[in-house]
Amino acid sequence: MKNIADLMNYRESVKVIDATLRDGGLVNDFYFTDEFVRDLYMANVKAGVDYMEFGYKASKELFDVNKFGKWKFCNDDDIRKIVGDNNTDLKIAVMADVGRCDYKNDIISREDSPIDLIRVATYLNTIPGAIDMIEDAANKGYEVSCNIMAISNSQEADLRTALDMLGQSPVDVFYIVDSFGSLYPEQIERLAGIYMEFATKYNKKVGIHAHNNQQLAFANTIEAVGDGVDWLDATYSQMGRGAGNCAMETLLGFLRNPKYNIYPVIQFIEKHMVPLKKSGVVWGYDLQYLMTGLLNQHPRTAIQFTKEGREDYSEFYKEVMAHE
Amino acid sequence: MKNIADLMNYRESVKVIDATLRDGGLVNDFYFTDEFVRDLYMANVKAGVDYMEFGYKASKELFDVNKFGKWKFCNDDDIRKIVGDNNTDLKIAVMADVGRCDYKNDIISREDSPIDLIRVATYLNTIPGAIDMIEDAANKGYEVSCNIMAISNSQEADLRTALDMLGQSPVDVFYIVDSFGSLYPEQIERLAGIYMEFATKYNKKVGIHAHNNQQLAFANTIEAVGDGVDWLDATYSQMGRGAGNCAMETLLGFLRNPKYNIYPVIQFIEKHMVPLKKSGVVWGYDLQYLMTGLLNQHPRTAIQFTKEGREDYSEFYKEVMAHE
Repeated sequence: MKNIADLMNYRESVKVIDATLRDGGLVNDFYFTDEFVRDLYMANVKAGVDYMEFGYKASKELFDVNKFGKWKFCNDDDIRKIVGDNNTDLKIAVMADVGRCDYKNDIISREDSPIDLIRVATYLNTIPGAIDMIEDAANKGYEVSCNIMAISNSQEADLRTALDMLGQSPVDVFYIVDSFGSLYPEQIERLAGIYMEFATKYNKKVGIHAHNNQQLAFANTIEAVGDGVDWLDATYSQMGRGAGNCAMETLLGFLRNPKYNIYPVIQFIEKHMVPLKKSGVVWGYDLQYLMTGLLNQHPRTAIQFTKEGREDYSEFYKEVMAHE
Repeated sequence: MKNIADLMNYRESVKVIDATLRDGGLVNDFYFTDEFVRDLYMANVKAGVDYMEFGYKASKELFDVNKFGKWKFCNDDDIRKIVGDNNTDLKIAVMADVGRCDYKNDIISREDSPIDLIRVATYLNTIPGAIDMIEDAANKGYEVSCNIMAISNSQEADLRTALDMLGQSPVDVFYIVDSFGSLYPEQIERLAGIYMEFATKYNKKVGIHAHNNQQLAFANTIEAVGDGVDWLDATYSQMGRGAGNCAMETLLGFLRNPKYNIYPVIQFIEKHMVPLKKSGVVWGYDLQYLMTGLLNQHPRTAIQFTKEGREDYSEFYKEVMAHE
């Protein structure tokens, strides 16, 4: 039975992170209107969401600013235009990928920035790079979390080594990331056990970022809550790469802390997410994502299948099986 | 940690029941083409599915045969036209609702029927009627299961009384039914514990029939497997009333018994379910179903909202809140 299993009480330490612009931006190359972003910010404030991730701090050397919307780069000025001085309880986050961010220049001192939290994203083989970024951000005064991606096909010994290294860094939160949407709740429980072991040892928090390939993003997130995981990523209408993420609306419906309100989320979805879907932006559970999830593969082939408007699912199944 | 949690082994006693025609029939008034039904039958045979539910044995006194497709009534002759002598490992099931079935006349002796399993559906307050139907079906030679509907807003003491009464009947399987799609995995675990207690006492099996209002139909089903529940309902593309059911494709991807194959399911979905959706038949997760699920209400208002093509979700939220 889980800690939260009585479903009547709540844990004060649970935090909800809205990743709509960041993971959702991977679907539409970050082309959100200012009205969308402003309304999302206000919806998050009203809904009691704890952090709003605006996008990436991507390197302008590596990525052409003319080929992406501004939230790929998250200039502090652009954030300021939305949040002003952000005199709210909602904190502001951005993601910075190891190897794809000029963090020494592009991330300025926190006291001069509207940003509160730097979310460093790394693979297991770039942990030293991640730690350099974590130290840089911590020295500049930020809260820092670290997403270790693609752990579903890594060795447990490697993961333990990484968590031990990160534990000794100034990072505040380790994230379980189910990049391929391939994990079942039982596996989340086991992983959470490993993460919690190091979190306890080093006094860190644990987070989860789930994908919905097997329709388990929400289920895996609430499994994790019961296992002691405190930081929960979600997106409005579960907008996110491929099969998308844990839906904010299901998550806020589940959490019992009275500071959370589902109604502003419903209003935002009605006003913005339904029209966005109708405009032809495609994400969410579909058979091709189930297949790559089941096979523990990167969703890129499924995303391509979607982009091409293909519907020959059985042919695609043969193709992905051949990748094994 | 669940029994099946190593995700590598399997339990021989697990059975998969395809409920596409029956629960899906509630979406399109059972108007499936013969080709659809024949192909579904063949897909189930190839996929290793254990039982295929063809529809209801509904009373022709109560329901007008001209207003529904034939699978609302499941004449033995109509089933025979699809399955012949059914020389396969797939068994044939039909559902019979307490108070809506002329079971004494319409259910004939098993030796003269293609049907193997009678699934009696009841509310808690009609258990004596259910037991009469169970005895009738058992006397006629059928396997019998019993779905107790709408348990999410019943008292535990009433549920225990019902299970104790059913335990003394010749029923083979008790079903956990999350009619409103309102239950979380932790609640499924608790309910499964209660059901298993009576199943053990009376040497019965336990099944689960989940709805997807909170995107938890699959998660709740695999939670139940880990709690000892053996009979698992699923539908192709999760077609079913309102938010639909546990998807056959996710379930077969999860189960490790090599007799199950996902590929025929993918082929069937491509050939029949994708076009069916395109033709305008609507089911599946959407905000209105989440709302009634969260509020533990019957989905009828959400189904009406869907039928009317409404998209004013926030207005609907106010309406369902007012029903509380």
